[in-house]
Amino acid sequence: MSAAVLLLSCPDQPGLVAAVSNFLLRQGGNILRAQQHIDPEVDVFFQRVEFSLDGFALDRDEIGPAFAEVAGAFAMDVDLRFTDTASRVAVLLSKEAHCLDDLLSRHRMGDLGPATIPLVISNHPDHAEAVAFAGPTYVHLPVTPETKPDQEAAIDALLVEHEIDLVVLARYMQILSDTFVERHRNRIINIHHSFLPAFLGARPYHQAHERGVKLIGATAHYASEVLDDGPIIEQDVLRVSHRDAVDDLVRSGRDLERIVLARAVRAHLEHRVLTYGRRTVVFD
Amino acid sequence: MSAAVLLLSCPDQPGLVAAVSNFLLRQGGNILRAQQHIDPEVDVFFQRVEFSLDGFALDRDEIGPAFAEVAGAFAMDVDLRFTDTASRVAVLLSKEAHCLDDLLSRHRMGDLGPATIPLVISNHPDHAEAVAFAGPTYVHLPVTPETKPDQEAAIDALLVEHEIDLVVLARYMQILSDTFVERHRNRIINIHHSFLPAFLGARPYHQAHERGVKLIGATAHYASEVLDDGPIIEQDVLRVSHRDAVDDLVRSGRDLERIVLARAVRAHLEHRVLTYGRRTVVFD
Amino acid sequence: MSAAVLLLSCPDQPGLVAAVSNFLLRQGGNILRAQQHIDPEVDVFFQRVEFSLDGFALDRDEIGPAFAEVAGAFAMDVDLRFTDTASRVAVLLSKEAHCLDDLLSRHRMGDLGPATIPLVISNHPDHAEAVAFAGPTYVHLPVTPETKPDQEAAIDALLVEHEIDLVVLARYMQILSDTFVERHRNRIINIHHSFLPAFLGARPYHQAHERGVKLIGATAHYASEVLDDGPIIEQDVLRVSHRDAVDDLVRSGRDLERIVLARAVRAHLEHRVLTYGRRTVVFD
Amino acid sequence: MSAAVLLLSCPDQPGLVAAVSNFLLRQGGNILRAQQHIDPEVDVFFQRVEFSLDGFALDRDEIGPAFAEVAGAFAMDVDLRFTDTASRVAVLLSKEAHCLDDLLSRHRMGDLGPATIPLVISNHPDHAEAVAFAGPTYVHLPVTPETKPDQEAAIDALLVEHEIDLVVLARYMQILSDTFVERHRNRIINIHHSFLPAFLGARPYHQAHERGVKLIGATAHYASEVLDDGPIIEQDVLRVSHRDAVDDLVRSGRDLERIVLARAVRAHLEHRVLTYGRRTVVFD
Repeated sequence: MSAAVLLLSCPDQPGLVAAVSNFLLRQGGNILRAQQHIDPEVDVFFQRVEFSLDGFALDRDEIGPAFAEVAGAFAMDVDLRFTDTASRVAVLLSKEAHCLDDLLSRHRMGDLGPATIPLVISNHPDHAEAVAFAGPTYVHLPVTPETKPDQEAAIDALLVEHEIDLVVLARYMQILSDTFVERHRNRIINIHHSFLPAFLGARPYHQAHERGVKLIGATAHYASEVLDDGPIIEQDVLRVSHRDAVDDLVRSGRDLERIVLARAVRAHLEHRVLTYGRRTVVFD
Repeated sequence: MSAAVLLLSCPDQPGLVAAVSNFLLRQGGNILRAQQHIDPEVDVFFQRVEFSLDGFALDRDEIGPAFAEVAGAFAMDVDLRFTDTASRVAVLLSKEAHCLDDLLSRHRMGDLGPATIPLVISNHPDHAEAVAFAGPTYVHLPVTPETKPDQEAAIDALLVEHEIDLVVLARYMQILSDTFVERHRNRIINIHHSFLPAFLGARPYHQAHERGVKLIGATAHYASEVLDDGPIIEQDVLRVSHRDAVDDLVRSGRDLERIVLARAVRAHLEHRVLTYGRRTVVFD
Repeated sequence: MSAAVLLLSCPDQPGLVAAVSNFLLRQGGNILRAQQHIDPEVDVFFQRVEFSLDGFALDRDEIGPAFAEVAGAFAMDVDLRFTDTASRVAVLLSKEAHCLDDLLSRHRMGDLGPATIPLVISNHPDHAEAVAFAGPTYVHLPVTPETKPDQEAAIDALLVEHEIDLVVLARYMQILSDTFVERHRNRIINIHHSFLPAFLGARPYHQAHERGVKLIGATAHYASEVLDDGPIIEQDVLRVSHRDAVDDLVRSGRDLERIVLARAVRAHLEHRVLTYGRRTVVFD
Repeated sequence: MSAAVLLLSCPDQPGLVAAVSNFLLRQGGNILRAQQHIDPEVDVFFQRVEFSLDGFALDRDEIGPAFAEVAGAFAMDVDLRFTDTASRVAVLLSKEAHCLDDLLSRHRMGDLGPATIPLVISNHPDHAEAVAFAGPTYVHLPVTPETKPDQEAAIDALLVEHEIDLVVLARYMQILSDTFVERHRNRIINIHHSFLPAFLGARPYHQAHERGVKLIGATAHYASEVLDDGPIIEQDVLRVSHRDAVDDLVRSGRDLERIVLARAVRAHLEHRVLTYGRRTVVFD
């Protein structure tokens, strides 16, 4: 069944729910799912409404313009999506392939959400064969500190060429420039192998081991200009103990990184994430 | 701030959200929280709407009658509650006091939800002193297989006398009659010390130990005529191992029973639980 | 570094630890890891001792005979293993490939433990290509109720031909005969997609959904003659809610099945599991 | 049954397990539990051996001197404890009583481990009545920045007077001096309401809310000279979401603080914790 998703946010005031639901009712829409949240600190209203397109009076390209009146009356930021439109995802990685493997596996089973994965980019050549077998185009873009800007420009060109909607940094260890991040604001999901904001930066498992923590974590977040500081989408932890050397943390951590990244990517692909400031609303 | 909560369920159809939100808007209501769920198997729509009473055009006793038109049009089952009305809770227990202690402690800190605990009943005399210090009336009602019906009638009389809204079976080990359960349908929450439907009935920790499970659980559910079979409100588990003898499972299990029961009681007191058939919708 | 693992069990009595450690010391062994457990119900002592072979006075084939005296004195059941000896694993599956994918992926990264996976058998033809790319021999053995005994004999023959040490039933939906189970006692690990002993048998996610549980589980266990009744090695759960239809439970459940099965397989491959009766000791 | 616990650490070398077990065997000791760990980074061997005193050839005061020869030969740090000797615990708190309530409740049920709680100190007067009812001596020691040294001296005097073995900072919000910490090294357990090392210092729930984390944590650790930096004994987390305002994090966090502190205190009271540098070995 085809459905549309309205994601909106605006200053909170009475009448918002009524305005949106009346609009849908007038057009013959049936609400399948609706979730909302009001942030009392900033008095902002967030809503995700999923409604069936069966019997809906408007064509897809008419919905936005028709809703503009409501949106304008309430100063809404509106995002309109369709559940049967597959997002086009690019996966970037360096040496470690476990997150890429996991995303390709889930995608193969239809578990990832409405998406295609046309493009995989790595600064290492290692994954060419496995990726070729799976389907996506694999592009090996090596990089050194000197060639960094050119390499990033090459990435950008590929993203444009393949009409990419979402960039997943699946243990891609290179830092992206502010310009790149800005251009793809809230469209780059990174997995950091710690429970942010603990253990920022490099070698978080080594840091974790040194500190003697009893849990390790992984965090999926939108990339922002500040390293490991962007809005968090999902996190989870795993129990460890004195028995775990750094290698054990790295190994156990892979499970965590895979599942945390997958949950975040799925939430994004299903249009369940709204970002404001440094925080996210993640609807169930 | 005073707020009202509308809990409703009805056959799903277009226009439900609009009808409810329009009703509220017309009366000057501002929606604070709204959550809904549609069960596609049975095509039933469930909603919980929390709206501010500040500036609301109707008095509390007028809201129900005024909403009756909408309710009737959609064949809704409606429950109207007020967030500042404290439910009156009776706690029943036998020998083990950890759940009672936990409920009293949370209540003392205002963490349990809008409630008072006027009454504690036990078939054991042990807890009289501690309960007296905490506040509630303590009634010791011993019971034998022969005196069971009379003892249950005495409980019922006390529930009526203290105008009890919710009965919490906090490791109360006596089985209640079908009549009692029917009279207090969805108003008796029991904690069973296993992950239902595993290990029904007596001595679940012994059963769990014998089976060699690697996790133990606790389940809070509404009591029904069939033992351990009522609608589940909340469950959780704890990791155990070969090192744990039955005593260790009992000890660790207490933590689980406390927190699972407390979460379920809180969800109920905050009017976040809707029951249909043998299942519950528990809004966040 | 090469190391040996002694797994032993016997009636508990004073002097066991001394006897084993003295034996090792006399031969120039250095203990790397030692874990023990005494089951007080049956007064049985279990131990896992991992010791370095560097500088050990005996050759590998001499260790067993040399230890026989100690073993005899204490009526020990002894299992001697070597950490650098890769177990040979066969994976059996039906239609769902997620567990197989996960095992192959972990194996590729060296995360599974000391093993090779020479053989994959399925009653479906679907996975031939992916498996061929990964490395193992893929054998498609279709089965009907009439051909069952012959198909099982064919499986057995393949296990012998490939010198298989461990059979992993990775969502293999056919029931194995008592004879087969007996022949491979404690060498067949099955993943059942529920938290045993809840929801035995077929369609556990449907059963779980019908019961309205708030957690779903997965259990890895050694296959025994009684379906879903063998010694449990590992279990874990995942939170679900009223929002989850059966399809959602199936999808979320895949993550659980993968990780629970992988943990159990790893524990077995690292010789950390001892079975007695219907229970396991799983050393960390 | 009476049992003794030997906690020891020393440079790793062959023969350690044999030396300890031979010593015990010669004296007629039966090992009930033994756990060990070797830290390969620093080549240190840690062991906890629990052995029965029934039939043990030595009196309690003879064991230390008799073991001195083994200890000396291997340069061991040795700690000898007896499972039936109750540690004397002092609980310090400020305004929030949930951790104290929990510890008193567990102690009442015999769940805390072998301990008595003779003394509760607070810089607030609020808890006098509840504590008096429970049993311990309650001392109200108010403090201001100017009176801090005197107040700390008063605490010290009380700890000496009541022969306290373990100080539990149960949401005691005053910072203790380096001298105090040094005097009670590894005998002060603090609960910090975050997942260290995230959100050090004041108002961690506010920090967590600002960062938009999806999990909150609590950490129990030995107090050291650097705030929130001491060896971690236990940690755990709880899932939160955008729906949680700071008050909700505080409320949910209480459950976490209680259980994490209780687990850490129990581990310490059962002599299962060894500290080295900034890390702990916590035996199961």
